[in-house]
Amino acid sequence: MFSQKVIDSLSKSSWIRAMFEEGENLRKIYGPDKVYDFSIGNPEMEPPLAVRESIKKISLSDEPGQHRYMSNAGYQDVREKVAQYINRENGVSLTAQHIVMTCGAAGGLNVVLKALLNPGEEVIVLSPYFVEYLYYIDNHGGVPVVVPTDSETFQPDIEAIERNITNRTKAIIINTPNNPTGVVYNETILKNISELLESKEKEFGTSIYVISDEPYAKIIYDGVKVPSILKIFKNSIVVNSFSKSHALPGERIGYIAVSSTMDNCGTLVNALVFCNRTLGFVNAPALFQKVIAETLNAAVDIDAYKKRRDLLYNHLISLGFSCIKPEGGFYLFPKAFVDDDVEFKNHALKHNILIVPGQGFGWKGHFRLSYCIDIKVIENSLPAWEALVREFK
Amino acid sequence: MFSQKVIDSLSKSSWIRAMFEEGENLRKIYGPDKVYDFSIGNPEMEPPLAVRESIKKISLSDEPGQHRYMSNAGYQDVREKVAQYINRENGVSLTAQHIVMTCGAAGGLNVVLKALLNPGEEVIVLSPYFVEYLYYIDNHGGVPVVVPTDSETFQPDIEAIERNITNRTKAIIINTPNNPTGVVYNETILKNISELLESKEKEFGTSIYVISDEPYAKIIYDGVKVPSILKIFKNSIVVNSFSKSHALPGERIGYIAVSSTMDNCGTLVNALVFCNRTLGFVNAPALFQKVIAETLNAAVDIDAYKKRRDLLYNHLISLGFSCIKPEGGFYLFPKAFVDDDVEFKNHALKHNILIVPGQGFGWKGHFRLSYCIDIKVIENSLPAWEALVREFK
Repeated sequence: MFSQKVIDSLSKSSWIRAMFEEGENLRKIYGPDKVYDFSIGNPEMEPPLAVRESIKKISLSDEPGQHRYMSNAGYQDVREKVAQYINRENGVSLTAQHIVMTCGAAGGLNVVLKALLNPGEEVIVLSPYFVEYLYYIDNHGGVPVVVPTDSETFQPDIEAIERNITNRTKAIIINTPNNPTGVVYNETILKNISELLESKEKEFGTSIYVISDEPYAKIIYDGVKVPSILKIFKNSIVVNSFSKSHALPGERIGYIAVSSTMDNCGTLVNALVFCNRTLGFVNAPALFQKVIAETLNAAVDIDAYKKRRDLLYNHLISLGFSCIKPEGGFYLFPKAFVDDDVEFKNHALKHNILIVPGQGFGWKGHFRLSYCIDIKVIENSLPAWEALVREFK
Repeated sequence: MFSQKVIDSLSKSSWIRAMFEEGENLRKIYGPDKVYDFSIGNPEMEPPLAVRESIKKISLSDEPGQHRYMSNAGYQDVREKVAQYINRENGVSLTAQHIVMTCGAAGGLNVVLKALLNPGEEVIVLSPYFVEYLYYIDNHGGVPVVVPTDSETFQPDIEAIERNITNRTKAIIINTPNNPTGVVYNETILKNISELLESKEKEFGTSIYVISDEPYAKIIYDGVKVPSILKIFKNSIVVNSFSKSHALPGERIGYIAVSSTMDNCGTLVNALVFCNRTLGFVNAPALFQKVIAETLNAAVDIDAYKKRRDLLYNHLISLGFSCIKPEGGFYLFPKAFVDDDVEFKNHALKHNILIVPGQGFGWKGHFRLSYCIDIKVIENSLPAWEALVREFK
């Protein structure tokens, strides 16, 4: 009766959301402090002080016209400031003309895919992946091609990528620091991918675009540097949001930055602006465009995330879990004690621990933990983890 | 290289936006007070005082978690208040479960069409129409079927609608008060359409949904009442925004309300929430959800719009234009003095008058004027209109 595809998707819909609702039920039964919910990446931190002050200042200013439509690309001065920020961070030379302000990264990714894809064109997604990518690609007539990363390091596997590039390959989505693994993709590997793409573009007479989804770029640990996608790839499009760096996920504010080294980058930006309009985003929310332009250098307290990572990671390792140590983001992606990660999720549930099965990220046998939660929940969960592990000894 | 369809659309893209840019050029040459820009529906009014106070209050509250993700459907308490508001205005019985908060009406319409449409299904659009509908339908694999309204009254033509309903008809979009004509669709005609749809549903064994785009529902004149779509149509879905009523177009806040009388309305709401998420809207902006929940009864000063309507309408009539008197919205849709409305647009441009040709709304020979502008611009434009008319005498 309704869209059959959407109805079919409803039943097998997001594991993350399913666990979120499971959590709501458990909290009602056991009380919120007896439930250890690691299922959803909804940062419990408040926005940095500078961001909160900026929201107040702009709201109080009563500046005329501040809630009106602006260009579908966003405010010119905001786009300029975002370009300057990107230039400082990446050593590139973008201008306002390379920036489109968006309703978060999710909005941005849909706009990019709509602007790029012709029916049946392929988009490479590296697993484990953020499951929404598959829907975003399908929304605009594309075909996702899932390519596993290295099963030990979760770094991109260049040979596997090479095997999957065809003359229909339009783009590859890169997500570093990665959700769900927390891995930061290695600069040399990315440079090798760049060479591979250029040689494949020549071979097929096509263009292959790198779409970099970077919401966790500012949440990094231990002095790690996230390689600059704009520097490494000629045909790169960076999509970013302030959901994580500024703890503003509910406000839907982000941007698209198109590499100035891309052929016809001006046409692509026009296409992005058109798609931002006709997909119904129209423009990024006005007030929060102004807020982020004033606070581009702000970021949540990374040390607070590091403390959570270390506490949970060290505990799991001490209990015998195998897990790569995250260099960024706020997720752990340990190996389950049984092959069937859904079964393992059910075991964890019996201890009031909520986790997301790895198959929700296209990677069976693992599970994802989100540690952007109250540290007391992590502390209180430690005995529950021990009890869970005892089941398997 | 990019999406061929999008690139093709760029060249024939929105007349409204094209005129907007033409206006920017003219203002640079002649100065802003010598350019009479009636091209874009970007209200120059500020939000009502209650709305501005609410933005300040919520921004200053520092309530923890107010910028976090919430359910993809929106805050539960906001959805409840919107349902209660709709019930008061329409005499229906919706609950929070029938409401999905959206990024404006444009976002809401895309979500509805994605949730409804299977490939190749048809959506009836009554001309003259808001041109974006055609893109929204195409985004989700639907086929727009344009059905002209009555050429004298711009009321829906029931016989023309009947001729265009097939077993592939999935929906009809209704926009009342109408953009661009300002006409409020007549209650008896709407009831006849409802009977027609029910009989066609029986004939074809299908469901036909009425999607009502109502951003102008609160901007009405002369005591006119806008008939309640939720009361008249069993399978109705109302999409609304606070862009016009609250003068918040840049903030992207609106909602979808699904009729409780629809079969499987719960499934449709689930599908809408899924599409809100996977199309990348994720959720309606958090802060402005809270603002509108506090100010549902607020509205901009309708008298100010009425003053503008009367000034411009009376002047055009006195100059010999033929134009239906708008009962709502903030547009006039007069007949041009020549059949070719683009040629007429060019004549007007020579007098620094910016108008949008009727063919931008699927209706040649007319033009649209947006009067949600500074009343001084309208006053200053009066001699320019006289000069324009003299050309045709």
